[in-house]
Amino acid sequence: MTLKMTAEDLRDFLARDFTQAADDFDFVEVTETHVSMALSASEKHLRPGGTVSGPSMFALADVCAYFCILSQLGPVALAVTTNCSIDFMRKPAPGRLICRMELLKLGRSLAVTEGRLFSEGTPDKPVARASLTYSIPPTGV
Amino acid sequence: MTLKMTAEDLRDFLARDFTQAADDFDFVEVTETHVSMALSASEKHLRPGGTVSGPSMFALADVCAYFCILSQLGPVALAVTTNCSIDFMRKPAPGRLICRMELLKLGRSLAVTEGRLFSEGTPDKPVARASLTYSIPPTGV
Amino acid sequence: MTLKMTAEDLRDFLARDFTQAADDFDFVEVTETHVSMALSASEKHLRPGGTVSGPSMFALADVCAYFCILSQLGPVALAVTTNCSIDFMRKPAPGRLICRMELLKLGRSLAVTEGRLFSEGTPDKPVARASLTYSIPPTGV
Amino acid sequence: MTLKMTAEDLRDFLARDFTQAADDFDFVEVTETHVSMALSASEKHLRPGGTVSGPSMFALADVCAYFCILSQLGPVALAVTTNCSIDFMRKPAPGRLICRMELLKLGRSLAVTEGRLFSEGTPDKPVARASLTYSIPPTGV
Repeated sequence: MTLKMTAEDLRDFLARDFTQAADDFDFVEVTETHVSMALSASEKHLRPGGTVSGPSMFALADVCAYFCILSQLGPVALAVTTNCSIDFMRKPAPGRLICRMELLKLGRSLAVTEGRLFSEGTPDKPVARASLTYSIPPTGV
Repeated sequence: MTLKMTAEDLRDFLARDFTQAADDFDFVEVTETHVSMALSASEKHLRPGGTVSGPSMFALADVCAYFCILSQLGPVALAVTTNCSIDFMRKPAPGRLICRMELLKLGRSLAVTEGRLFSEGTPDKPVARASLTYSIPPTGV
Repeated sequence: MTLKMTAEDLRDFLARDFTQAADDFDFVEVTETHVSMALSASEKHLRPGGTVSGPSMFALADVCAYFCILSQLGPVALAVTTNCSIDFMRKPAPGRLICRMELLKLGRSLAVTEGRLFSEGTPDKPVARASLTYSIPPTGV
Repeated sequence: MTLKMTAEDLRDFLARDFTQAADDFDFVEVTETHVSMALSASEKHLRPGGTVSGPSMFALADVCAYFCILSQLGPVALAVTTNCSIDFMRKPAPGRLICRMELLKLGRSLAVTEGRLFSEGTPDKPVARASLTYSIPPTGV
């Protein structure tokens, strides 16, 4: 598949349409096979003890899956998450949390993504894995 | 099963140990079969358009499952989420979002919960469903 | 919702279109809110020791979800499973295994079901829980 | 991680302890990072039309995850599936169906695996993806 949106396009889209999230998430890599994003964890993302909370990891996986789909589909703002399965496996280390998502299927009405979350520098010890399905609205006339 | 923590106990525990979350979540009902909690949605929980975001729904399901386990297990702060499967089915209506979680299994090392999220007043039109597994650390000496 | 197919209709459909499965599964109850089916476990469904195998439980959940959707949608043979999340919680007892599925959403392109599996007579001690999503093909002109 | 069981060991274990399944499944590859198995589909695995059924895909993912764990853990026959999330994405082509499973976490009480199913020769067009959690019993004295 070829990219319909580059890292630059996605960054602009995030800054314009997701103003709330734009401060929290950053693009790390955008290729024809996957999109990687980082969570810039601030106070609100942390549990007592300083680890990133489950909902913040879910948020990172969700936004990364969304932009992974958009990179192949183009700037269609209306895709919505219909399902997520997430396994939490290890405590994140202090520092940046990365999510790397791959698009496994881009159908007419459904897109399926899968990826892993890991602390920067240790992709072989994933903190979590997640698979997400998005519903893509019909494009119509 | 009999309750090891009442609604009052859970409220105290939430206020003391989850200071960040205590403003966002409220107990609606605590019985021997289920725990219901409400999300007091503020700006940070909303998507453009005013609907509650996916991560906020995940957070509500996660906290409600946690307290559902604690109500049967007692104040063991160390249970951690290991898996969540969540389906988003409808847009929430404006107003309070409720989650009602049931404890399906309380084993020695795993607890399994299942429940639904719905806009207050319409439990028959669930906004989302979720099942969560928690790992319970061994107690003992 | 009103039923588009009764228990009798579903039984005929199963016998005619699922000849392989018709010997294994039986309808227990078909109502406006749920469909219950039983697995008539034979040698091929059992693990060493005599418990019903995971794949046989998956098969029961899958077929029950399918007929739960058909009971509301009518005899549209083309709905296909797109996602299943299943938790195995207890060993089944000897005897009939029942699955009770509920239709949570019947959208234009997706249907979501949720239910539990239990040994006959002990619905309060579920053996497994499962949620399944089906894709419904467009009906066209 | 180093292998505690080679392909040869796993084959022997399958033939001895899973006599029912031994005819259906075959090892394709066993490495330090993953285990691949194939389903030798026969009549009982097929839907009308000749495609492999959902339950047969589930069975392949389940057995492959199990042996993936055993390859790292050693011949501990008592690990049991506690959760599976599976997405069905494409119709399998005629011919052999392969599952490739990776062990993401091997903890004291839980093991998490993730993998994909694909028709032989087209790993880039996965038929399904699956993640499975196994509970590992305590090893005792």
